[in-house]
Amino acid sequence: MQNASAILLISCPDQKGLVNIISEFIATNNGNIIDLEQHVDHVDNMFFLRVEWELKDFNIAQKNICTEFESSVAIKLNKTLNWSIHFSATVPKMAIFVSKYSHCLFDLLSRYQSNEWRFEIPLVISNHNDLAESVQRAGFAFHHIPVNKDNKKQAQTQQLSLLKEHGINIVVLARYMQILSSEFIDEFPNKIINIHHSFLPAFPGAKPYHSAYQRGVKIIGATSHYVTSELDAGPIIDQDVERVRHTDNIEDLILKGQDIEKIVLARAIWKHINYKTLVYNNRTIVFE
Amino acid sequence: MQNASAILLISCPDQKGLVNIISEFIATNNGNIIDLEQHVDHVDNMFFLRVEWELKDFNIAQKNICTEFESSVAIKLNKTLNWSIHFSATVPKMAIFVSKYSHCLFDLLSRYQSNEWRFEIPLVISNHNDLAESVQRAGFAFHHIPVNKDNKKQAQTQQLSLLKEHGINIVVLARYMQILSSEFIDEFPNKIINIHHSFLPAFPGAKPYHSAYQRGVKIIGATSHYVTSELDAGPIIDQDVERVRHTDNIEDLILKGQDIEKIVLARAIWKHINYKTLVYNNRTIVFE
Amino acid sequence: MQNASAILLISCPDQKGLVNIISEFIATNNGNIIDLEQHVDHVDNMFFLRVEWELKDFNIAQKNICTEFESSVAIKLNKTLNWSIHFSATVPKMAIFVSKYSHCLFDLLSRYQSNEWRFEIPLVISNHNDLAESVQRAGFAFHHIPVNKDNKKQAQTQQLSLLKEHGINIVVLARYMQILSSEFIDEFPNKIINIHHSFLPAFPGAKPYHSAYQRGVKIIGATSHYVTSELDAGPIIDQDVERVRHTDNIEDLILKGQDIEKIVLARAIWKHINYKTLVYNNRTIVFE
Amino acid sequence: MQNASAILLISCPDQKGLVNIISEFIATNNGNIIDLEQHVDHVDNMFFLRVEWELKDFNIAQKNICTEFESSVAIKLNKTLNWSIHFSATVPKMAIFVSKYSHCLFDLLSRYQSNEWRFEIPLVISNHNDLAESVQRAGFAFHHIPVNKDNKKQAQTQQLSLLKEHGINIVVLARYMQILSSEFIDEFPNKIINIHHSFLPAFPGAKPYHSAYQRGVKIIGATSHYVTSELDAGPIIDQDVERVRHTDNIEDLILKGQDIEKIVLARAIWKHINYKTLVYNNRTIVFE
Repeated sequence: MQNASAILLISCPDQKGLVNIISEFIATNNGNIIDLEQHVDHVDNMFFLRVEWELKDFNIAQKNICTEFESSVAIKLNKTLNWSIHFSATVPKMAIFVSKYSHCLFDLLSRYQSNEWRFEIPLVISNHNDLAESVQRAGFAFHHIPVNKDNKKQAQTQQLSLLKEHGINIVVLARYMQILSSEFIDEFPNKIINIHHSFLPAFPGAKPYHSAYQRGVKIIGATSHYVTSELDAGPIIDQDVERVRHTDNIEDLILKGQDIEKIVLARAIWKHINYKTLVYNNRTIVFE
Repeated sequence: MQNASAILLISCPDQKGLVNIISEFIATNNGNIIDLEQHVDHVDNMFFLRVEWELKDFNIAQKNICTEFESSVAIKLNKTLNWSIHFSATVPKMAIFVSKYSHCLFDLLSRYQSNEWRFEIPLVISNHNDLAESVQRAGFAFHHIPVNKDNKKQAQTQQLSLLKEHGINIVVLARYMQILSSEFIDEFPNKIINIHHSFLPAFPGAKPYHSAYQRGVKIIGATSHYVTSELDAGPIIDQDVERVRHTDNIEDLILKGQDIEKIVLARAIWKHINYKTLVYNNRTIVFE
Repeated sequence: MQNASAILLISCPDQKGLVNIISEFIATNNGNIIDLEQHVDHVDNMFFLRVEWELKDFNIAQKNICTEFESSVAIKLNKTLNWSIHFSATVPKMAIFVSKYSHCLFDLLSRYQSNEWRFEIPLVISNHNDLAESVQRAGFAFHHIPVNKDNKKQAQTQQLSLLKEHGINIVVLARYMQILSSEFIDEFPNKIINIHHSFLPAFPGAKPYHSAYQRGVKIIGATSHYVTSELDAGPIIDQDVERVRHTDNIEDLILKGQDIEKIVLARAIWKHINYKTLVYNNRTIVFE
Repeated sequence: MQNASAILLISCPDQKGLVNIISEFIATNNGNIIDLEQHVDHVDNMFFLRVEWELKDFNIAQKNICTEFESSVAIKLNKTLNWSIHFSATVPKMAIFVSKYSHCLFDLLSRYQSNEWRFEIPLVISNHNDLAESVQRAGFAFHHIPVNKDNKKQAQTQQLSLLKEHGINIVVLARYMQILSSEFIDEFPNKIINIHHSFLPAFPGAKPYHSAYQRGVKIIGATSHYVTSELDAGPIIDQDVERVRHTDNIEDLILKGQDIEKIVLARAIWKHINYKTLVYNNRTIVFE
């Protein structure tokens, strides 16, 4: 397995010497950089950086790194510096929201069971009860929280309370057919990932495969994105497509599309839980 | 080289025995089927067929095939039968319309020079004069027909007159930045192919790469389609995409996109000049 | 749901009138063709056909269709005619062989649980016991049959006996790390589907991701194929690839590759259980 | 247009503080980093870096940068440091070698004519005379140097002399069907780019499309790589694939393949002339 490492994510207005200042902090404290990727957006004159270094032999203890970075680097730099430090030892805790379509849910549970990623799934939440049995049988907690016009607010309170109770830091909408309120989204900024079953911005909203069939497209797709208060308009993390033909009817599109959906969602989650994403101006920087 | 063959394209309401009636016409006249592909659209209850057979040893002379098919098959079938017969010996004559972007134009001229396809390019028409020299130097006729608010109708008359004079049966808009009038389009129904630089229906109209950048998509694409009077809304023939990243600025998208554009346009033309396309309900059936 | 239908698969030396003879059999018995696709291999002069028609209103009862086809069509045609008739009402029974890698197995079990396809999984067989618990917990039968140098023949007898007992008609090697004997393969000709974790013919045999890393390829892939007695050399049903970079180490390739493997395997199985494949000369004809 | 910039490429055994030392050199001389990408190969413990900075306001004149870097940075570091500095103002000079297939050649000439890239094509060399006229008509110098068993050495001397005379720094084999000698290759280490018409390592050598057809693959591909003395075994720069079906005969594979070949070759050249490639251990690091 990999050794313990720290990951620093930065976004700020570009200025000369940024890489130098940051790499100096790591070098002078005897850190070994495993991976560094920076990006300068010359249109908005913004600087983005992800750097990962080994904690072994690093002179600063893990618990003190944030304060040290704050006092010795962050204050030197532009006041608009956005930064966060993450540790590979922390295991991300993921909640999955689902309705009736199970392919994305089962794919994520399988990845857990196969030990593909380092993550935990403390709970699955659904507005329907259909998938309760199979989820529970596989050993995961399932919470049935029905949602309708009258109980929306109450359901949300119940959902949020469960998320907090379990220390959830990433929420995945695995074909969850309910719209979240702005209050809910604000609790998890850039931490809610949705999978939409089209290559956005084509076919937002309901029934994209029906619209794709109607339009006669030759490729269908799926889009994973961070959820914002505007429907299907949040920062895109990943997309992929599949070729279709006139021989494919709507059911065929749905079946083919499900395979893209689960893969594209999984790729986005993997990027997120490895701290490889930054959001700026409703777009993502996705480090490799 | 391939032997001479005939290609029959049919679309009509589905009914029992269609394949049998058509294959009987070929079999009883001693034709050998090289390729047969049919498609039934169960939503609209429509039948589509493409069948190609060798003319060698066929009992009916090429010039009589249409009348024979009409009298012995077509009249037996539903009155709404749409059919056409084409011959592999006929060389398609293509006109290319272009503005200033040259990548699609040069790609098509190169295919001609490399003998990739059986086709002729009797003329290139442009609203600008920029590409005149390189087109003429390569040995093709170039017609500069400026288009502006005042001379639109006149320019179109001039274009149409050239197309008829040269017996053009396929018009390719190789990044031609002018909108054709309905009258023009009606003269070449399903015979004008455009390349649009996005995966439609995302980003129709002008500057799709700018919009793609703005939206932060992770794939860009191109779409070739038959031109109808509604802008960028005609029947799609082919589409393809290319992965992009946050590191790609608008210029990068344009550069990467040009490679998709020329390939997707070429694939559509190839399908068309081999009589592998049918249009129904603003969608295409594309036989293999 | 779809109505009951019959599917006829044919391969034989090409001759004039084949489509006509077969479509006549269906038309005169009042059958409605849903789908017909034929292919002529002009190199080997072979004819291949898949035709599907509705059983509703068909004049011949399902149980008599084979004998009727034999007596009224097959005997008229070339003696070398290879044909089979399948019925959409028959539910395919699939056995899954697996070792320790679980991603393909879990993907197939999930498809069953999500009702994606019409099929049954009467049993899972493994040479290891690692996956017993999760398979059984999901409600499937798990048989642990250890395989080593000394008990190979005995293990195979046990496997075959289980397959027959459960009326298995498709065997899937979902990353089963044992080589099957020719005797075993002969019992299921073109009915055993393997997934190999490379784009064959590159990197056959063991550890293809290690070899891919070593060679520095920029794409990795997966191949699903029918198993023959020659290792990784059977008829290919489907393949797909994924782009990789110098930043991907062997573990990354394995992780990315697993997603391709499960999708490519699933696509091959879907084609097979819908009777869309034919094998000729160690190649497949895959109808759409 | 972009401002003038310098590009530093480095490969060396990994050690702590490398990024810091290099970024300090740029920062203290008032350079503004436009782009920095580093990669650590943890298997071989190697460090690779590409950093590009603006020359505007940089304290060291362009002509002195190499000596300054040598004396102030390189000597401080590991003796095995491999480094080179390039300037965006330098226009790469490319020679194209071609035989009879013209699609890759025409594609490159078109890119020149369309001003897609900053590069020059001072000469085209061919062992056949077939393409002389179209190359010359397009305004490029064409040199016909026949190659046969008896004159190989002499032909090579003639080729090398032309390359030196024109100050060529990149040689492109655009489907050149002759094997270069080791002596020739040694004159242009990692500066000769070949396009091979298969996804290597599958189907090296002659007639890969025939082999692909024979094997019944479902994807074909193309590979661009640096030429080494071992045939089709040099460091891969880029690869891509295209889906094929049983309906595609060898001619179809060749036609489809040509489109991949020219795009994959172009992408490799673009990476090379923008100094985005490094070679280590017969693999490439390809920066974005």
